[in-house]
Order: sequence, then C-alpha cells, then structure tokens
Amino acid sequence: MLGFELGKIDPSARIGRNVEIGQSVTIGCDCVIYDNVRIGDNTVIGPHCILGEPTMAFYRDASYDNAPLSIGPNSLLRAGTVLYAGSVFGEGFQTGGRVSIREGTKFGRHCRVGTLGDIQGLCEVGDYCSFHSNVHIGQLSSIGNFVWIFPYVVLTNDPNPPVGPMVGVRIDDFAAVATMSVILPGVHIGSDALVGAHALVRKDVPAEAVVVGNPARQIGTIHDIKGRPDGQAVYPWREHFDRGMPWEGIGYQAWNERRRAGLA
Amino acid sequence: MLGFELGKIDPSARIGRNVEIGQSVTIGCDCVIYDNVRIGDNTVIGPHCILGEPTMAFYRDASYDNAPLSIGPNSLLRAGTVLYAGSVFGEGFQTGGRVSIREGTKFGRHCRVGTLGDIQGLCEVGDYCSFHSNVHIGQLSSIGNFVWIFPYVVLTNDPNPPVGPMVGVRIDDFAAVATMSVILPGVHIGSDALVGAHALVRKDVPAEAVVVGNPARQIGTIHDIKGRPDGQAVYPWREHFDRGMPWEGIGYQAWNERRRAGLA
Amino acid sequence: MLGFELGKIDPSARIGRNVEIGQSVTIGCDCVIYDNVRIGDNTVIGPHCILGEPTMAFYRDASYDNAPLSIGPNSLLRAGTVLYAGSVFGEGFQTGGRVSIREGTKFGRHCRVGTLGDIQGLCEVGDYCSFHSNVHIGQLSSIGNFVWIFPYVVLTNDPNPPVGPMVGVRIDDFAAVATMSVILPGVHIGSDALVGAHALVRKDVPAEAVVVGNPARQIGTIHDIKGRPDGQAVYPWREHFDRGMPWEGIGYQAWNERRRAGLA
Repeated sequence: MLGFELGKIDPSARIGRNVEIGQSVTIGCDCVIYDNVRIGDNTVIGPHCILGEPTMAFYRDASYDNAPLSIGPNSLLRAGTVLYAGSVFGEGFQTGGRVSIREGTKFGRHCRVGTLGDIQGLCEVGDYCSFHSNVHIGQLSSIGNFVWIFPYVVLTNDPNPPVGPMVGVRIDDFAAVATMSVILPGVHIGSDALVGAHALVRKDVPAEAVVVGNPARQIGTIHDIKGRPDGQAVYPWREHFDRGMPWEGIGYQAWNERRRAGLA
Repeated sequence: MLGFELGKIDPSARIGRNVEIGQSVTIGCDCVIYDNVRIGDNTVIGPHCILGEPTMAFYRDASYDNAPLSIGPNSLLRAGTVLYAGSVFGEGFQTGGRVSIREGTKFGRHCRVGTLGDIQGLCEVGDYCSFHSNVHIGQLSSIGNFVWIFPYVVLTNDPNPPVGPMVGVRIDDFAAVATMSVILPGVHIGSDALVGAHALVRKDVPAEAVVVGNPARQIGTIHDIKGRPDGQAVYPWREHFDRGMPWEGIGYQAWNERRRAGLA
Repeated sequence: MLGFELGKIDPSARIGRNVEIGQSVTIGCDCVIYDNVRIGDNTVIGPHCILGEPTMAFYRDASYDNAPLSIGPNSLLRAGTVLYAGSVFGEGFQTGGRVSIREGTKFGRHCRVGTLGDIQGLCEVGDYCSFHSNVHIGQLSSIGNFVWIFPYVVLTNDPNPPVGPMVGVRIDDFAAVATMSVILPGVHIGSDALVGAHALVRKDVPAEAVVVGNPARQIGTIHDIKGRPDGQAVYPWREHFDRGMPWEGIGYQAWNERRRAGLA
C-alpha cells in the first residue's frame, strides 16, 4: 500500500547517526529519526513520526549528545507518534496516532498507548498496560503490570502547584482507572482497584476497592459489582477478559498456574 | 498561497491506487492518500493529512485490502487530519487540525469536528452536528441531527471496563452536551436536552431536560433557563441561533414549515 | 543533529511570500510557513510546524490576504506546532509538540504552552504565563501575568451554548488553575487565587481565595495552605518558586523592589 510498504524504509525518512534498525522494519514517509535510536525487528513506524526528539538540553548545551532511545521488536507506532530521546520500550509496544512520550521513561512489554496520549517522562510502566486515548501521565508516575487507564485520565505530581516538590502517583497491578478521573500527587492505587469515571482521587485506594465521585469515596469492593447487562460477576477483570493478554484462550487461572510453575 | 494552492494537488502528496479525486480538489503538501479513497468536488485537504489510514488488519493479514473511504464534496479538512479507511462523510464536512476518525463511521451532511477531535469508529452521526475541540466519541455512539458537543466531552461505551460488552451512547436531535461532561455507557439523551458543564451522566436524560453535576441530576427543563445576560429565553436553541444551520437567515420555524411542506 | 541543524533552514521547508526570518533562525523539515510571517532572531521551529495557517476567510474570499503573524526572538516551537495567521507572540515563547493557536491572539514575553495546547483565538495573555499540556483557552479569554494553567483545564465562553453571546474568562496575575477544572463564561479569577483540581467554577473567585469542588466553593485563602510534605507555607507561590521567572536566583521580593525602583 502506498507510502507504507511493510518492511521498507520510505526514502523521504530522515535517519540520523548511530541509528540501529532491525530486520524487516517499516519506516513511513516524512519520519525523522534522530541520533542514537534503536528499532527492533519487525517494528512498523507510521508516517510523520519523530523518534529521538531531543530534550531541552539540546538547545542550551553545545556538547549535547542525544540519549539513546530503544524500541523493542514487533512494535507498531501509528502516524505522528513522537518519542523523545532517552526512553526504553519493550517488545510489542503499540501507539495510536500522535502519541507523545518524553524522556526518561521505561515501558515494559506489550503496552499500548492510545491516540493523543501524553506521557510526560520520568515514568515507569510495567508489562501489558493499556492506556486508552488522551491520557496524561505526569512525571514520576509508577505503574505496575496489566493496568488500564481510560481516556482523559490525569495522573498529577505537584501537591503545591507550581512549587513542588513533585511526587508521583503509584498504581499497582490489575487496577483500572475510568475516564476523566484525576489522581492527586502521591496517591497509591492498590492492585485490582477500580476508580470510577470522573472521580477526583485524593486519598490512597486499597486493593480491590471501588471508589467514585468528586472527591472520591469508597463504595465497596470489586466483588460487589454486578456486571451489566446480566448481573454476573465481572471483576477481577482478569478472570473475565483475555483479549491481548498472555492468558488469551486459556484463561487467567490456568495461565497463572503455568506461570507459577515456571512454564509461562 | 504557498503550499496550499486552491484547486491544486501538491506534488509532495502521495496518492495510492484507486483514488477518485473530484473537480477542483485541493490536496496540501505531505499528505498521504491510501488506496480506495474518494474525494468529492471542491474539497480542500490541508497539509500533513492522512486519508484511508489502514486498520489493524493491515498488519496481520497479507490479503488485506483497504476499505473504501468517501469524503463528500465541499468539505474542508484542516492540517493533520487523519481519517481511517472504511468511513463515509457527507457533503460539507469540516475538521479542525489533527482530528482523528477511525473506521466504520458514518457522518451525515454539514458536520464539523473541531481541533484534536477523536472519533473512535463504528459510530453514526446525523446531519449538521457540531463537535467542538477535543471531543472523544466512543465506539458504537449514535448521534442524531443538529447535536452540539463541547470540548473534552467523552461518550463512553464499556459498562464494566475493560470487560465489556460495549454499549454505545445515544443522543437525539438538537441536544447539547457542555464541556468536560462524561456520558456513561448506554445512556440515552433525549431531544433538545441540555447537559451542563463537567457533569457525570449515569441515567437517561429526558427530552428537553437540563441536568447538571457529578452525578448529574435534573434541575428543570430548557424552558426554565433565562439566558444571560438579559434573561430572555434562549432554548430551544434552534429558535435563537442560525449560523451555519439550514435555517440561517429565515429562522427555524419558517424553515421547518417549508421542510414539512417538502420545500426545504 | 539530523533534520534539525541549529541555525539552518531545512531545504524541505516551504516558505511563503513576505516572510521575514531573523538571524540564526532554525526551521525544521517539512514546515509550512505561509505568507506574512515574521520570525525573530535565534528562534527554533521544529519539524512539521505550520506558521500562518490561513483563517476560514481564505476559503471564501478570493481577495484574502494572510494577516501577519509575528513570533518574537529566542522562541522555541516544538514539532507540529500550528500557529494561525494574525497573532503576536513576544520573545522567548515556547510550545510543546502539536500546539494549536488560532488567530487574533496576543501572548506577551516568556510564555509557555505545553503539548497539545489548544488556544482558540481572540485571546490576550500577559508575560511569563505557563500553560501545561492540553489546556483549552476559549475565545475572548483575558489572562494576566505569571498565571499557571494546568492540564485539561477549559476556559469557556458561551453562557447559553450554542446561542451566545460569548463572554470570556478573566484571570489575574499570579493565579493558578489546577488540572481538569472548568471555568464558566465571564468568571473573574482574582490575583494569587488557587483553583483546585477537577473544579467547576461558576462564580467569581476573590484574590488569594482557594476554591475546590463541583460546583466550586471557597475553602479558605492561600495563606491557610500548609505545603506538603512538611507543612511550610508555599503560597503565594512567587515567594517559593523561581525557575524560569525573572526573579530566578534573587527571589521575588528583591526582584519586585528592583522593579519598583525601575531597575528590573
């Protein structure tokens, strides 16, 4: 297909110095790949992407050298994605269009960041996390594995804006934060917890808790939730959902037993 | 004017196979037009746009063929708009900069989507709808005619995130949803209703109702609203506003009578 | 560094008529500079930017001439910034990636607009204002000096959407509006005031007031706030923060005394 031949580097792409490109990599038209970028095998970079965007120091320091950017194999970056220098992305990383991810960030394996996502840098994210469109992940956020963050959620980091000092949000494995919620600085969201839509979370959320409202208060645990439309249990979600997860097709329990046995 | 000569196709644009381009179409620089796109007469495509962006199946299926994308005549797409394959846009469609609209979507005639709008696909939108900047329209949304959606509104679709099953929001003719409101999955907003700013709408909203707050509750009907600054009636808005509407210059009532008589 | 050599104009950039480019200006690849743009000395324009984007009149009026756009010296526009024709930016202006700023806007000196910021035009902004990512500044907003606006804040302007008439928000010097807050049309936020996260501000906010909630109510003044983590005073912020401010290194009080004496 025009402008996007799989496995080819479009001749209009600009490729900097010391760029390592794996086997069968696709780079779309009008991309800019700055110095010291490494792209794993079979990765697809859509048109108009910028990889290794220089940090502010570039404009101030004549001896600036671009920090390395590493993108794992089998990744897919949609058109217009901008990744700054100095971050690391594990295999199977996926972005929607026009995602921005700043420096000093580490994503694990098989993570997804939806359209317009704005990851502010200096963050750590585990494996198999799914961020829907237009999330804002403030600096110093620390996010576990299998975490879901829905559109327009903001993780903040300044308890006394703009004075600081900054303190990040921490979110544990399997938690889900629904659309348009704001998590205040330093809040810890426990594993499997669920934050309802449009909440303002000012206090720590215990594991498996469900919190809603502005300000958010706990209304129960995930075991109290009757799924719509039929009233069946739907949480913990990992026992009822497997698309794109490592337990796809076998179920979480079977996968977890295999994992504990060292087989997965 | 440089880089944007009306009625011309910039030589830097990449044009795929089986692309139908109408009379007097403008295509700006660095655009990518993938296979099977149809562009109606007198339409203007700004620089850096991508039309017919392939769906995920492209990366997985060697026999993939891009679904057709059709853009009606007299449309205007601002710079950086991305429209996926497999959608249909009626005449007079307008986008602000960097709009994204995914596959399987149908917009009627004379709709507008403002800067950074994120239409997630599998949606249906009627005629003369106006979406301001940065709206997020979840999959399976169904929107009538003459609907207004203001900045940062999110229409959701998953009652048990991330488990599903997805159920879309439905909004009837002439309704307006003010900025930063979230509409929960499956909610039905009746015709001429008004959702106030920063509301969380969990229940259906009757026709002509006004709802506000988090969670939203009904505080009256649109007939109770005294317009600012002078206390005059301003709703239903169609009787007090006509810019860009088919009743511009003649008023809603006269137009509606003509329409009923089969004249408009 | 590839594609972005400081002090050079990339040959792929399109430069219109009557464009004035100062000394040591950098223009990145694939930029479009329309007619009647003026760029001050030492300014850096990243790749894929569009300067002087024509207003809607361009498409309707054959005699259209692009209104001048002026960008002050020592500015830095990140990749994908779009500035419409007919605005003025003072020296040291900075944008994050993919900022959009429409026509008829005036920014003073040393202002910053973060990633994805959407400034709707017909606004006035003073000096040393900092807008974080993804703010939405509605038309007719009037913002003083040293104002902080955090992510996903929306300044509205239509008291009777979509009927109007529009009336802008006014924010005085040193005020700060925290993330995801909505300010309703015509509201005046006094100097040094603090609007908490996720607030809906319907009424004027007095100088030095702290307001929180949906709807917002006053919970005290900035002098009541004990900073985290140590309980020390942190407001007014100008006495506790100086990065990027004209009092950097000397403190606000000393700078202000010098300023009053005509020395700063």
